[in-house]
Amino acid sequence: MLEGLQIERATTKKVKPEESKLGFGNYYTDHMFIMNYEEGKGWFNPRVIPYQPIVLDPAAKVFHYGQTIFEGLKAYRTKDGRVLLFRPEKNFLRMNRSNERLSVPELDPNKAVEALKQLIQVDQDWIPSEEGNSLYIRPYVIATQAQLGVAPSTEYMFIIIMSPVGAYYPEGVNPVKIYVESDYVRSVKGGVGEAKTAGNYAAGLKAQELAKDKGYTQVLWLDGVHRKYIEEVGSMNVFFKIGGVIHTPALSGSILDGITRNSIIHLLRHWGYEVEERAIEIGELYEASKQGKLEEAFGTGTAAVISPIGELNWQDEVLVINNGKTGELSQKLYDTLTGIQKGELEDPFGWMVQAAVFDSQLAK
Amino acid sequence: MLEGLQIERATTKKVKPEESKLGFGNYYTDHMFIMNYEEGKGWFNPRVIPYQPIVLDPAAKVFHYGQTIFEGLKAYRTKDGRVLLFRPEKNFLRMNRSNERLSVPELDPNKAVEALKQLIQVDQDWIPSEEGNSLYIRPYVIATQAQLGVAPSTEYMFIIIMSPVGAYYPEGVNPVKIYVESDYVRSVKGGVGEAKTAGNYAAGLKAQELAKDKGYTQVLWLDGVHRKYIEEVGSMNVFFKIGGVIHTPALSGSILDGITRNSIIHLLRHWGYEVEERAIEIGELYEASKQGKLEEAFGTGTAAVISPIGELNWQDEVLVINNGKTGELSQKLYDTLTGIQKGELEDPFGWMVQAAVFDSQLAK
Repeated sequence: MLEGLQIERATTKKVKPEESKLGFGNYYTDHMFIMNYEEGKGWFNPRVIPYQPIVLDPAAKVFHYGQTIFEGLKAYRTKDGRVLLFRPEKNFLRMNRSNERLSVPELDPNKAVEALKQLIQVDQDWIPSEEGNSLYIRPYVIATQAQLGVAPSTEYMFIIIMSPVGAYYPEGVNPVKIYVESDYVRSVKGGVGEAKTAGNYAAGLKAQELAKDKGYTQVLWLDGVHRKYIEEVGSMNVFFKIGGVIHTPALSGSILDGITRNSIIHLLRHWGYEVEERAIEIGELYEASKQGKLEEAFGTGTAAVISPIGELNWQDEVLVINNGKTGELSQKLYDTLTGIQKGELEDPFGWMVQAAVFDSQLAK
Repeated sequence: MLEGLQIERATTKKVKPEESKLGFGNYYTDHMFIMNYEEGKGWFNPRVIPYQPIVLDPAAKVFHYGQTIFEGLKAYRTKDGRVLLFRPEKNFLRMNRSNERLSVPELDPNKAVEALKQLIQVDQDWIPSEEGNSLYIRPYVIATQAQLGVAPSTEYMFIIIMSPVGAYYPEGVNPVKIYVESDYVRSVKGGVGEAKTAGNYAAGLKAQELAKDKGYTQVLWLDGVHRKYIEEVGSMNVFFKIGGVIHTPALSGSILDGITRNSIIHLLRHWGYEVEERAIEIGELYEASKQGKLEEAFGTGTAAVISPIGELNWQDEVLVINNGKTGELSQKLYDTLTGIQKGELEDPFGWMVQAAVFDSQLAK
């Protein structure tokens, strides 16, 4: 157990929602984790408390200057009664890289994983059990000092909340239509595109709304300098299978270093695929398609794991990929990664971390 | 008075700080303004209430996806007992442009100015009277819906808080040393650099810290595409006097449309100066300096009004401007604009808006 951790249990528990009606990010568990930071004192007072509102001075820096970092990961309930986390240490290592970029103090990643495990144990009856459902975990840091000077905050809160979520694909993996964005830019090298910070997501909403109005699910972001190199799709990393080789944008400084991205690359190389991390021009895809070489395209992220791309629209030129169907490799990657996450397939890379064993199992 | 406005007065008042010890953004008045927004309902429940904490669900979108917009302006107490605001309608018009970019619902600018006037009248005894001091006003919008999907919030709060602040230059206008930033980028065309949103400020903190470590007050930002065109200085717009002509970066899409910037351009043209809004290469300044033509440089913003630049460091090449002294034109601009703001000089453009008349005056 995390040293100094206080646990205050909720005296009344919420009524749990029906598993078939979860959706994403609509319900929260009975507890949350909080820890405070003060300059000169460091992080202190780690505690699991009943889920409750955050009370902040109206001058708290998070409202004004956006010093806030978040992470996203999932806990899965296995059929044999364990709770598994997928590479959680990677999330907290990335959180520290984001923190560094935004002048937010670093956390101890091991202690953060310990805190998360404790929270999961307290709220383990919230982890859904139906196929495809999981517990989405949202760790985040906010700047809380009540001071309006444009300077890093001297006070922060680190918080973890958890939300039971439904299957991303209740009716099976399904390709999406993507609009290639030519006007708006998500990020640029030298900016904060590598950091998982709130401002990147606010910046992307407008293009996302316009794409939806045109009948597309999401946008494909191009780089801010040349306006032709592919960066991300929505808030996911993106991969292309061209002539049997897998291509994905290199981590050039404006792209999120996705944990699913990293895992997919591992898995593909493990299977013997050649994976090229490089600058990919949008025009290349159209060329490859004409030559019959563009075989599959998919986004990768924690929420969807794999999101196949069935169609691209770049300046009104429509490109249909794999007849708009989920590709064989996309499906295999999805099945394998979700199989490992649910503890149903072998975990050759030691990715899964056990967070809890259900009481009923312990009692055996 | 704003229709439907409720006013709840504080039953106990705070002890006011000494005017000589105000600083910037450290103290807040006894009251604040709040108004709520819900999709389908619009903005509702405008109210002046005692200054108090904001209570939000831990899943509120502002913490996660950064949908937040702010403004900054000042109220000045005149010697004859009036309270003046400087072009307040411009702030709320800009807030709406920022809102549009971040998918935040628009406000009625006239009603916002009315709400602000009401708040000022309730807290008018907080407006400092010593030379150079003023009441800094911070209107802002935050996304409050407790939902973790990456989509615009369906709920918001519009809040105004106010802080009595000390003189920016207690010992007279003073030039600063500026580091020209070559690695980090503030914004890029297609991004959110034009919007006054929290994320832009968080993104700038790192470079600011590094510049301070090197002995510089702030950074000069270059564009994210060519890395040579001047954008802003710290969080201010920037002007250069070269061979008698005034040059300032054009509003290219990544620069804030500063209200002080706009006012300075008005004033300069009114005085007969030629003002060029264009793309300015950093190298030009060094060339102009060699030819003895770089006469003055200064930042413009609400807090400082005019901030003369005495020295630039671009890749370790140091450029001293006007012998590191405040230029004649910089001083004249500062004296004129602050004179108009304090109601001591004629207001030829009708910029000042009366927010209140002190009770003692009304009683006369």
